[in-house]
Order: sequence, then C-alpha cells, then structure tokens
Amino acid sequence: MPERAIGVFDSGVGGLTVLRELRKQIPGESIVYLGDTARVPYGTKSSPTVLRYAHEAARFLLAQRVKLLVVACNTASAVALDELSDRYQVPVVGVIEPGARRALEVTRNGRIGVIGTEGTIRSGAYERALRTARSDIEVLSAACPLFVPLAEEGWAHHEIARLAAREYLASLLMQGIDTLVLGCTHYPLLKQTLREVAGPGVALVDSARETAKAVASRLKDHQLLHRSSAASQPLYFVTDIPDRFKRVGGSFLGEPLQNVTTVSLD
Amino acid sequence: MPERAIGVFDSGVGGLTVLRELRKQIPGESIVYLGDTARVPYGTKSSPTVLRYAHEAARFLLAQRVKLLVVACNTASAVALDELSDRYQVPVVGVIEPGARRALEVTRNGRIGVIGTEGTIRSGAYERALRTARSDIEVLSAACPLFVPLAEEGWAHHEIARLAAREYLASLLMQGIDTLVLGCTHYPLLKQTLREVAGPGVALVDSARETAKAVASRLKDHQLLHRSSAASQPLYFVTDIPDRFKRVGGSFLGEPLQNVTTVSLD
Repeated sequence: MPERAIGVFDSGVGGLTVLRELRKQIPGESIVYLGDTARVPYGTKSSPTVLRYAHEAARFLLAQRVKLLVVACNTASAVALDELSDRYQVPVVGVIEPGARRALEVTRNGRIGVIGTEGTIRSGAYERALRTARSDIEVLSAACPLFVPLAEEGWAHHEIARLAAREYLASLLMQGIDTLVLGCTHYPLLKQTLREVAGPGVALVDSARETAKAVASRLKDHQLLHRSSAASQPLYFVTDIPDRFKRVGGSFLGEPLQNVTTVSLD
Repeated sequence: MPERAIGVFDSGVGGLTVLRELRKQIPGESIVYLGDTARVPYGTKSSPTVLRYAHEAARFLLAQRVKLLVVACNTASAVALDELSDRYQVPVVGVIEPGARRALEVTRNGRIGVIGTEGTIRSGAYERALRTARSDIEVLSAACPLFVPLAEEGWAHHEIARLAAREYLASLLMQGIDTLVLGCTHYPLLKQTLREVAGPGVALVDSARETAKAVASRLKDHQLLHRSSAASQPLYFVTDIPDRFKRVGGSFLGEPLQNVTTVSLD
C-alpha cells in the first residue's frame, strides 16, 4: 500500500500549490492530480452539483488505486469532505480544516481574517471550522475575486495585485486581525504581496502548506508513508483541452508540466 | 408575431449590457433573458460542449415563443451562431459580426485592436470576421482576464482597472491601432477607463451597442418590430441560485433585477 500514489483533485490549477507543497514535504510520494478544468469553477455552482462532481473525481482517482485523497479545492472541501470520508475506504484530507487549525494555533488576539473566493466565503466553511473549535474566536472574512485571475495572469507581484490586496484587506486590518488565512489554493502565489500589505503584525496561514502537513501526518498515522528516495514525476489528468492547464500550471509549479492526459468524468 | 418577446442568452450576467442597449434602442420590445449561470464561463469549455449548451438555451427560449434570438455571449456566438441560424426558424443575431462590421466602418489605418476573454481571443472569431470582410486589415488582439472580475466587482473606474487596462493595451497601442473592439459583453462597463487609457486617437467599438442596432435592423427587415409605447419589464431566467445574478446584474443595469426565475436546462 505505501507505494501507491496520493490522489489530489481540484477544479483547475489551484490545487497545484498543494501538490508543490506535497512534493516539498514528502518528496518520496507519487502523486496523481486531477483538474476538472471542463467544469471550473466550482465556487459558483450549487452544493448538489459540486457533490456530484466530487464523487466523480474521487471515483476516478480511486480507480487509479490511490492510497489517500486530497480535496485540494475549497468549495469541494466545504461541500463534500464528510460524505467522501464516509463513502470511501481511503483517508480523505481537505484544505479547510488544516488551515483553520493552524490559524487557531497562531492567533493571540482571537481575531482571524479569512480570504477566499466568493463561493468559499459565502459557504462560511472556515468560520464554522474556526468557531466550532473555539467559540470565542472572531472571524472576519473577505471575498477577493480578483486574486485568482491575478495569480493566473502571473501578476502576483504587480502593483495591480498590491492595490487589489489593499482594497480587499482594508476592512480586516482596520478591525485588528492578527492572523490571515489564505483560504484559496491560488493565494499562496500572492503571499509576498499579501505579507507586504498586511504588515508584520499579521501572521499568514498558507492553507496549501498546512494541507500538505496534514497529509504527511495522516499517512504516518495509517503507516502509509512511502520512504522512497526517487521522486517520480506526478501524473496529471484534466477534463478539457490541456493547453491552458499546462501553461498556467507550469507557472504555478515553476517547471513545465509533463504527463498531462485529458479524460472524461461524466 | 411582432408582439412576441426577443430572447437573449448569455452564460451569465455579461449579456445584460446587450439587454440594456436593446431597451434603450427599441424600448417597445419585451425581452426574455436567459443566463446559464450554473455553467458559466463558456470561454474555457470545448466547442462541442458550448454548442450543446447553446442549443439547450435556444430551445428553452423558443419554448417561450420568442421571435428572435440574441446570442449575447462571445464564445457561443463564435462556436454556435451558424448552426443555430440553420436549425431554428427565427432570426439569430450574435455579438461578433455587428462589432466587427462597425470596426471596419470606423478604422482609417486598417489596424484594429480586439480585446476579449481568453476564450474569445483564442477562438480567433473577430479576426476571422474582420479579415473575411477585408483581407488587408491588420488585427491585433489581447486577452484581458481581469476585466470581467473588475466589472463584476464594481471597480470599473478604480485605479486598478486603469493599471490593468494600461498593461493589456500597451502592445496594441504601440502597434498603432486606431480602433478598439470591446469584444466581451462585460467590457462596456469599462468603456470610460478604456477611453482614457486608449486616448482620443482610438475609436472604441461597443459590441453590445452594435448588437442592439443589428437586432433592431433585423426586426425591421422581418417586419417584426413592435411599436408599443408601454415597455414591459424583462423576464430573467438563470440556471443556478439567482442571488449573485441579481446582485451583480443589478449593478450592470443600474436598477434592481426583478422577475428572476431559476430553471434547469440539462
């Protein structure tokens, strides 16, 4: 079992920031990545629809015989994590709980900011995760619809990104947050800009990094860690023409994407 | 027949700029609008998929007994216009040809810039329409992925929009375009900013306005113009929860959206 791959899925390229962290933190693991690029974005779709997509993605990856599933998409994590965990035999890790847990560890004043896509913020998933753990926590959230296209455009360090970050964070900063959860898998690309705008008094929580930590720990718990020295190249599957995925995804990973195959899920 | 409504469809809210122009130019007409918000955006999807969606939308509107179909979506216009025109009995008007025709009328130096979503630019639809009409025309195009979220965010006149416009237009302006086609139904909201950045030497072509003109002229040709003085309120149909459509769409139209019903197409 340990030699089997980890399955990662997202609606598009965003989950590649989680894949990058997995390769950094547990480089001996093989990875199969599925980007449901034909149906991106999930954030604007209804919950039953997202649930159906998540099941289709999970079944596809399980057919690849993965040993663990990573739901590297905030919307799918919010909507489908519990059901996927109940339904399938392998451990399932989402992107919300690891970031929320880390935020609770680092906050001192109990004011936590959460930024994400409109869908993630509207779902209230981070707020629920944070306040279920500690009801005295104050959660201040902001949807940042420009950050995904800014990251995909390669403008994460452009003045435009800085101005947008200032707009989006203004109210959270004014309300005195000391911790900011990057609640979207695209946002780690904007980390430097966000750090500059938020200032040294605010700790950033990178949910991609925390998710990879959670994966490592789950693998260890289940004695599924693969202690191999030779890192194999990830396999990528997408549900629509791969050109854009290759181009944007390559810039996310900082290296060309190879082994990209188009598949149909529905 | 003239008393029947005009059917307008788009993948989301963008087509509302066409609806606004229709109401301005031919205020006596009733309008039924369909926003396929469950499956937005079309621009990242494959042609067979977009074609299927366009047929589903057309059939839905024809079941509402519309007298003319407006394909107020650039991707669907590029992919499906000919097939829809062949298949259905009513006149079908897309958003590409009217803008292209206007650009050919106003250019003097034959250098036409086209901006749009990644999908529209990649499709080459404007370039084809322009160069089929006049092969000596030089078409310079740029995809502007930030403009849609900027328009939807209500930041069309923000410094961020100005900076983004400068980035996107720099190369087109340097190459001496004298005409710029706003090849996306969201872009009329950014017209003022684009005018400032492009400068007085560049004529802007608003494809929403040109499409409404084309609709008026087609109705006249087919003796379908409805010369009523009482403008009825449009009916809106969407394929996913209407909250976001109402909110963003209301800001597009400058008035609250009423009569919004959720329907299923597939």
